[in-house]
Amino acid sequence: MATTKAAHGLSQDTILVLMPCDPIKDFTDRLEAKFPGVTIRWQNTKVASGLLMTKDMPAELFDGVTIVCAFQIPDASLVPKLRFVQLTSAGADQCAENAHYKNPDIPFCTSNGAHPPQIAEWVIGSWLSHQHQFPKFRDYMKDGYWEPPYQTRVQDSPGLRMGVLGYGAIGRQCANLARALGMDVVAFTMRERPTPESRKDDSYCVPGTGDPDGVVPSKWFHGTTKAALNEFLAQDLDLLVICLPLTALTRNMISREQFEILAKRQAFLSNVGRGGHVNTKDLIEALEQGLIRGAALDVTEPEPLPKDHPLWKAPNLLITPHVSWVCGDITRRILQIFEQNLTALSSGTPFVNQVNKEHHY
Amino acid sequence: MATTKAAHGLSQDTILVLMPCDPIKDFTDRLEAKFPGVTIRWQNTKVASGLLMTKDMPAELFDGVTIVCAFQIPDASLVPKLRFVQLTSAGADQCAENAHYKNPDIPFCTSNGAHPPQIAEWVIGSWLSHQHQFPKFRDYMKDGYWEPPYQTRVQDSPGLRMGVLGYGAIGRQCANLARALGMDVVAFTMRERPTPESRKDDSYCVPGTGDPDGVVPSKWFHGTTKAALNEFLAQDLDLLVICLPLTALTRNMISREQFEILAKRQAFLSNVGRGGHVNTKDLIEALEQGLIRGAALDVTEPEPLPKDHPLWKAPNLLITPHVSWVCGDITRRILQIFEQNLTALSSGTPFVNQVNKEHHY
Repeated sequence: MATTKAAHGLSQDTILVLMPCDPIKDFTDRLEAKFPGVTIRWQNTKVASGLLMTKDMPAELFDGVTIVCAFQIPDASLVPKLRFVQLTSAGADQCAENAHYKNPDIPFCTSNGAHPPQIAEWVIGSWLSHQHQFPKFRDYMKDGYWEPPYQTRVQDSPGLRMGVLGYGAIGRQCANLARALGMDVVAFTMRERPTPESRKDDSYCVPGTGDPDGVVPSKWFHGTTKAALNEFLAQDLDLLVICLPLTALTRNMISREQFEILAKRQAFLSNVGRGGHVNTKDLIEALEQGLIRGAALDVTEPEPLPKDHPLWKAPNLLITPHVSWVCGDITRRILQIFEQNLTALSSGTPFVNQVNKEHHY
Repeated sequence: MATTKAAHGLSQDTILVLMPCDPIKDFTDRLEAKFPGVTIRWQNTKVASGLLMTKDMPAELFDGVTIVCAFQIPDASLVPKLRFVQLTSAGADQCAENAHYKNPDIPFCTSNGAHPPQIAEWVIGSWLSHQHQFPKFRDYMKDGYWEPPYQTRVQDSPGLRMGVLGYGAIGRQCANLARALGMDVVAFTMRERPTPESRKDDSYCVPGTGDPDGVVPSKWFHGTTKAALNEFLAQDLDLLVICLPLTALTRNMISREQFEILAKRQAFLSNVGRGGHVNTKDLIEALEQGLIRGAALDVTEPEPLPKDHPLWKAPNLLITPHVSWVCGDITRRILQIFEQNLTALSSGTPFVNQVNKEHHY
């Protein structure tokens, strides 16, 4: 029985949690009760200057560690006995060069599904902020300027179309919100999703959110070629959301040619994937030339974006410093996924959110 | 038969449309075909300085007018034969002093239901913009400042609670969006809505939006007393949306006492009703003292808000100049409602959105 197995399954394990917060006692108490003999170490990675890196942590922190829960995984030499990794991120591309990651016998799981509510809020909030011209009205406030009636034209969302590049957990909550706004949604995935079953998503989902059954999109597109991508982008999109993992296939996928296609309805670009998906020089030109109506970027290339980078000054643009995933509840949600996976590890049952190491997600 | 009646029902009528746009030919052609003999005059009310007032229009424009479609209704003396009014606004309080409005035999209908999508976008967009701190990041952009990780704390919406003061067409689309965000919704109405039937709303509704069946709120509150209002405000609200019409009963309803109740969870206040619902001096204090986390106002008292008014400088505030209702599609939606009501007028069937002149909506 799973419970009996669990009682012994982690007794030889040492868990290292690297999170930007102090230990959460009710969580560690529960793990210790559930997995007798387990050792738990918790390092708060938040420091005044930002985030503590694993290379700057004392070596003894890693002694005997077999399970890590973190965003950044320690070098393989520091944790030679590693047997399971819980990432706190939705993707796994930051691990690509880690030797343990390349070992097919060490499962890596993401925290996919913990982040969609806040990231989708960021996407829809920045879209609405642009469409309803909030930045302009904020500027007017400084001068106490009440614009006379009928000077402002606003396009609301009913009947507009959102394209979601990467219909995973994040894209599904974006779609759920877009549907509530009265928008049409079209989805793009790498692999074909021809059946209702294939359109489902079994990653962790905050109750009441998302589109776990994949019923929101009116049309599905797929492929790994530029032609497939371009066909999708040509669907009269008003809003394009990039929420893909970064892979060799997806790097630089949105460049001049794609911006020219998006110019059809002067789409708005929202990137919550990775900066590398978009050719930055071409993006600046697309904004300056009005090929797209605007953009919201939570990710850039490089990060941090240097102070004198021209992207800061491009028109109709919101940049935030890779914070769309932040929320007060995120730690609790990640630890829920981690606990579920520790139970799976100790009982030999399937993990939730296990990374396909070819696709990095 | 309705069609036969309609063929003669408006042959003696002269329709005056006052809209901030040029005549829409497919609409006027359709009316002329549907109601032979009808006369249609259309005045574009948009002028360089803002909006043309009826008092500044040539008197001959009003000669013989029996039906008006407008935001501002001409003085009764200008249109003595008036028999039907289609307002382009969601409420009717701007008509309270009009002599025809006081005549119970002249039906006034609102354009309730044409505005909810864009107003609800304004409400949820300004809420998300505040919660995700977009104004701060826009300021950082000016200096090319990439904030280091973990400096920003954001609270996302799942599990938070929105209170809707006035659960009409606008409040229902706010609720629909809040539900998609994972929020809990509680509703307040003047009259009790004890049964599923009583919770329905039969005003015009853009397909796919809103909550016409009234199934979103987890709890309903009602009343016309301060005690009833205060009980509602005490429901651990994170976001309070005011989307009531302005009446003697609702004027100044949110004052110091109510802000102290809202301080429980430091609610965010969103006002898309009328400026007169909120005591402005108390609002400024509530913002300055942090009783509420912030506010978004599309309406103020007075309007326009004077250049030197202290409200402009209150912290954590977005003010927009009564534009939340604006959208490219609004004219089309209003004319749909008007056409439906002209058909009702000519055939003697019930109107959609007829104003209860005691309640001004």
